[in-house]
Amino acid sequence: MDNNFHYKDNNFYVEDVSVETIVSGVGTPCYIYSYSSFVNSFQDYKKAFSKLDPLICFSVKANSNIAILRIFSKLGSGFDIVSEGELERVIRAGGDTSKVVFSGVGKTEEEMRRAIQVDILFFNVESREELVVLNQVASDIGEKARVAIRVNPDIDPKTHPYISTGFEKSKFGIDIAQSLDVYKEASQMKGIEVIGIDAHIGSQIFELSSFTDSLKKLLKLAKDLEHIGVDIKYIDIGGGLGISYKNDEIPPTKATYAEEIIGLLDEMPYKLILEPGRSLAGNSGILVTKVLYNKVGTAKKFIIVDAAMNDLVRPAFYESYHEILTAKKEEVGSEKVDVVGPICESGDFLAIDRELPKVKRGDLLVALSAGAYGYVMSSNYNTRPRVPEVLVNGSEYHVIKDREKIDDLIKNEEIPEFLSL
Amino acid sequence: MDNNFHYKDNNFYVEDVSVETIVSGVGTPCYIYSYSSFVNSFQDYKKAFSKLDPLICFSVKANSNIAILRIFSKLGSGFDIVSEGELERVIRAGGDTSKVVFSGVGKTEEEMRRAIQVDILFFNVESREELVVLNQVASDIGEKARVAIRVNPDIDPKTHPYISTGFEKSKFGIDIAQSLDVYKEASQMKGIEVIGIDAHIGSQIFELSSFTDSLKKLLKLAKDLEHIGVDIKYIDIGGGLGISYKNDEIPPTKATYAEEIIGLLDEMPYKLILEPGRSLAGNSGILVTKVLYNKVGTAKKFIIVDAAMNDLVRPAFYESYHEILTAKKEEVGSEKVDVVGPICESGDFLAIDRELPKVKRGDLLVALSAGAYGYVMSSNYNTRPRVPEVLVNGSEYHVIKDREKIDDLIKNEEIPEFLSL
Repeated sequence: MDNNFHYKDNNFYVEDVSVETIVSGVGTPCYIYSYSSFVNSFQDYKKAFSKLDPLICFSVKANSNIAILRIFSKLGSGFDIVSEGELERVIRAGGDTSKVVFSGVGKTEEEMRRAIQVDILFFNVESREELVVLNQVASDIGEKARVAIRVNPDIDPKTHPYISTGFEKSKFGIDIAQSLDVYKEASQMKGIEVIGIDAHIGSQIFELSSFTDSLKKLLKLAKDLEHIGVDIKYIDIGGGLGISYKNDEIPPTKATYAEEIIGLLDEMPYKLILEPGRSLAGNSGILVTKVLYNKVGTAKKFIIVDAAMNDLVRPAFYESYHEILTAKKEEVGSEKVDVVGPICESGDFLAIDRELPKVKRGDLLVALSAGAYGYVMSSNYNTRPRVPEVLVNGSEYHVIKDREKIDDLIKNEEIPEFLSL
Repeated sequence: MDNNFHYKDNNFYVEDVSVETIVSGVGTPCYIYSYSSFVNSFQDYKKAFSKLDPLICFSVKANSNIAILRIFSKLGSGFDIVSEGELERVIRAGGDTSKVVFSGVGKTEEEMRRAIQVDILFFNVESREELVVLNQVASDIGEKARVAIRVNPDIDPKTHPYISTGFEKSKFGIDIAQSLDVYKEASQMKGIEVIGIDAHIGSQIFELSSFTDSLKKLLKLAKDLEHIGVDIKYIDIGGGLGISYKNDEIPPTKATYAEEIIGLLDEMPYKLILEPGRSLAGNSGILVTKVLYNKVGTAKKFIIVDAAMNDLVRPAFYESYHEILTAKKEEVGSEKVDVVGPICESGDFLAIDRELPKVKRGDLLVALSAGAYGYVMSSNYNTRPRVPEVLVNGSEYHVIKDREKIDDLIKNEEIPEFLSL
């Protein structure tokens, strides 16, 4: 556990503010982030990779609140985006668009135009078909679009299938063997300037050899490209470094990860680009929820809490594990329970068969490591307003997004005339 | 396929409006519903069950747009709700609160209070712990809360585990054997009036014996309750009747389903309550999406469309199948493809290894049977604005919810002072 999340006098704190204090202000459920934790994560990356001075592009999809983006922007971060919406977020956060890379298999023409206009660093082009459209869009407005081709190195990252993206049957990238032809074609396009190679093999990866195997293939490709007269400036190795969700899960440190990469890239003429998301934000946030009921079933005991899968979908969606702690440490003994939410689906759970301290109605629980792919994936399913996001800095906390009101959810709906009463 | 969704001169229509016409007005992706289809579904239920004159409570979580709720309300429908948000929707739609039943394992005190104040028909109480709190809340405001106890009949409905809710290890309901004691206790509570029995065993069920096995257990319980002096007025058998997602999938008709239920309930002194959601709305809506790219990979061919898992999560979440059609019928031959969205996860697909007519950039595709658990589960993941919902009535179409703007997604976020530039 990141030490910005800790017990003090048996109460759970984020930096110097107790969870109880925040909850008395904003209610439950709520997401709480630690400013220092984000800063430390970023500085760890900087330090680990200092020898290469890479451009670190925070993967906006992991946590897109503009206050969070502002934190990374102030630290010098670039941004990996996947939509026009994410680009607008970066701009709103005061991010430097010249440090933005645009990934994703389904870019629209409008998105391309906007990104060219704000002069992003480059597009990660995911298919030949996209390249053709991008060339057209750029040419039409008399510009050149800088591109890296995202290649598919056919690597198994040994993670959840939904977040494995670099194997042969994936929709992402261009097969590395075929990419030479695409590069050749790209280098002759009027609206395209080829400047990079990109790969992203997946997420929540613990096997460093997956990264190095992939990078070796990229370096080989860069050499091959040189031979046909295509000069590469940037090597973008994507993101994907895993984090600890379980106490006994030890991911590679950023330093070890960096060493492996530096070992291959040192003295090379390329600027390194990294696209970390989870490993920058994942351990920097928690989801706080209140116990509604202790329910004793015949086969199981359930702790019914007020947070549901619409608030944090990861357990239901990826079968993810999140450590759960009580906001108060008490000597009460423990028991094996399912922690479940109010939504009417059996998939609505935070934990199954988990040994937890005994709790009672009104107690607060904390789900750790909810800083990435938490709030951003939340929905209004069951007409549940989305919860607030809170950022703690030292002894102060700031609401960076308010709790939605029921009215917010309905106000844009309209009953047509023919259905009037 | 519901005949309100059909080809006319090789163009796909919803009632008398072509999908192309609607798209030229609202863009893609969009949800389109047929008014007549909703009406027919409801009337089919009414007719099938006419002998019992049940109260049909549309399950709001399946499709909660207030225009849709208005349709059902005007047809005399009641509503099955699971949150205060859904209750407010019913009220906003002009629904009759005296026909509302309130289900769900995690009701809060505020929700209970509000529901008592607007005098809903009854609460489906899911645990003894909830009963105690409900009694307290009702007593505190000098009212009585009418309740059915949701019992768990321990039936395997043979459907997706996430939507199986009536087996022993489920968080839902009270074990039927233990429920007698809870009923006894409830009948002596000052703030509680016991009036019903409820069960809901799951969703997308094709085995009618699952329903009848469950109902038999409820009827046995009603008799047992009578013996201890607890009189039951309502038997609520929940929802769960399956619909056809695949062309070759033939669910039981509403008439057959009704026959089985009527066979057990005819001449009984109970009022039947039904809670259909999917079987009222599922086949009444489609999701329309545009082809962005035809991507030829080495191992697969991909059709990249502009709708993603944030718009329709069912394929990724439940491995659900939706029939996909082209909005124009052309003689072009077919090929096996994956239909995938722009989101950066391998789980973002609409169809895998599907034989489809060949399509080109700009073509429109239609995903059928998206009227239930479609829009309601959508999110803003990847900062994608949620899509519009459109209701067709004859030759007219009405936007019942506008497409979100990127600005809508960001405007409630705030950057704290200490992060100012």
